[in-house]
Amino acid sequence: MAFSVTILGNSSAKPTPSAHPSAQVVNLNEQYYLVDAGEGVQQQLIRRGINPLRLRAVFISHLHGDHCYGLFPLISTLGLEGKRTPLDIYAPAPMGEILDYHAKYFLDDIPYEIKYHQVDTTKHQIIMENNTLEVWSVPLRHRVPTAGYHFKEKQPGLNVDKFKIERYGLSIAQIVALKRGEDIVLESGEVMANEKLTYRPYEARSYAYLSDTNYSAKAAERVRGVDLLYHETTYARSEEQWAKGRGHSTTTEAARVAQLAEAKRLIIGHFSSRYKNHDLLAEECREIFPNTDIAREGDTFFIDERR
Amino acid sequence: MAFSVTILGNSSAKPTPSAHPSAQVVNLNEQYYLVDAGEGVQQQLIRRGINPLRLRAVFISHLHGDHCYGLFPLISTLGLEGKRTPLDIYAPAPMGEILDYHAKYFLDDIPYEIKYHQVDTTKHQIIMENNTLEVWSVPLRHRVPTAGYHFKEKQPGLNVDKFKIERYGLSIAQIVALKRGEDIVLESGEVMANEKLTYRPYEARSYAYLSDTNYSAKAAERVRGVDLLYHETTYARSEEQWAKGRGHSTTTEAARVAQLAEAKRLIIGHFSSRYKNHDLLAEECREIFPNTDIAREGDTFFIDERR
Repeated sequence: MAFSVTILGNSSAKPTPSAHPSAQVVNLNEQYYLVDAGEGVQQQLIRRGINPLRLRAVFISHLHGDHCYGLFPLISTLGLEGKRTPLDIYAPAPMGEILDYHAKYFLDDIPYEIKYHQVDTTKHQIIMENNTLEVWSVPLRHRVPTAGYHFKEKQPGLNVDKFKIERYGLSIAQIVALKRGEDIVLESGEVMANEKLTYRPYEARSYAYLSDTNYSAKAAERVRGVDLLYHETTYARSEEQWAKGRGHSTTTEAARVAQLAEAKRLIIGHFSSRYKNHDLLAEECREIFPNTDIAREGDTFFIDERR
Repeated sequence: MAFSVTILGNSSAKPTPSAHPSAQVVNLNEQYYLVDAGEGVQQQLIRRGINPLRLRAVFISHLHGDHCYGLFPLISTLGLEGKRTPLDIYAPAPMGEILDYHAKYFLDDIPYEIKYHQVDTTKHQIIMENNTLEVWSVPLRHRVPTAGYHFKEKQPGLNVDKFKIERYGLSIAQIVALKRGEDIVLESGEVMANEKLTYRPYEARSYAYLSDTNYSAKAAERVRGVDLLYHETTYARSEEQWAKGRGHSTTTEAARVAQLAEAKRLIIGHFSSRYKNHDLLAEECREIFPNTDIAREGDTFFIDERR
């Protein structure tokens, strides 16, 4: 089952000739979830071959313009494109009010429903759930209420070993029971433990998006074991005091969060426009957390199944 | 004195992978005026080498998102960039309310003043004036209140012929009087008519932006003699009925407006996304108005001085 993250934009607040502000799209089994929506996000989706009509939900970390100005044109276009299914939007307050004003001034009559879900940025809790996915809010430490989002794939269902189905002549009823995790009794009367006949096809995977934030050990604990961690890295390590005052992190801090979280891989971005050479920032991270890469606009990061 | 128009975006409502929605920048003697502000306009300005801090004023034709969603991120960035001088925004109501809500939710504390000027879209009148320029509103016929904008350079001041200054030994006082348009009396007692000693360096020039609109003969009359006319051309001539219902124009209608206005040159755009080959649309215009060109994104159209 595909699990990937595509970087649609990754620059911090000030625009540049080519880089777009924060926006990513998470793809879990061809279900698409937008994470932040900086200006130009609808065009970035189309450029990356993702039809905006396929978005299932939008998650906004906080209400700074560089993380959400693109949401309003996107909402408008989805109306023009004839969307019929609801669009779920998860964001801190007062996004609900803002969406209402936007609708009042800019949306005549759109053919779909906008379902706003207010995210409590002080709570670590499940905010969305479906058959394959849980999304958790992760409190972050920024200048305004901000939540990170932790996309946790659900444990895939048990598979029954095909050779053993044949060897023991298992019935459909027995297979269903095994998939539910139960032990079964063979015709011979022998009790077979579930784990002797079944296996997990792969381990559940996860992705965490932590932006914008000061260093937070608590956030690291909350995403412990994450496969892929995006952590903002607005400043070089020399700017620790400045970063602190701005509600942002340095390279060293991002790497420490990855280390503390025992993440498998770290990707970094949201660099201040003062940095032209991002490789130097990645190098600073790698001194602490070697498996670090830059989340370049247009890149897709795949989280492979581990068996 | 430079007088030019740069096309920052020119597509109609639906986004495409590369084309941006409506936005243009008028440059008169290195004073920059933004006309409409579709999503991505701040990045488009930077790409075209225009520092957003240099914008003197913004003119919004109407409150459809594809003509103004880019204004809000632009306002926000100008704050980050430390703008100090006021930004004048001319737009139909209720843009004033929208700007207030935007400020409430997205602007903490910007270091410059936003001066909103409500444009009455039913009136043909001067809405802005400075030493070199008058801007007139031109009522248009769209689904919502919409104004076109007519940028009229002021008649340049009289120059006094250098050879005649020498020949008649004119004093500073006499030269000043001549520049004011007065006749003068030479030492000999001879009266010299102003026009014998002075000349206009060039004819005043003008640019008109008419988008979005149904065909309007009245609008054409109001921009009569315009040097460069931008007229929206959303549909091919075969779609006249459809265009009418949508508040848009066809190729034939745009060309007729140019003809009726006795424009020197027509540029067209705001094409429906259904058209992939825009040259065919330009050809339809040229059958009626030969001096027609497509206003391609990134193009700059210069209005040369005529002597």
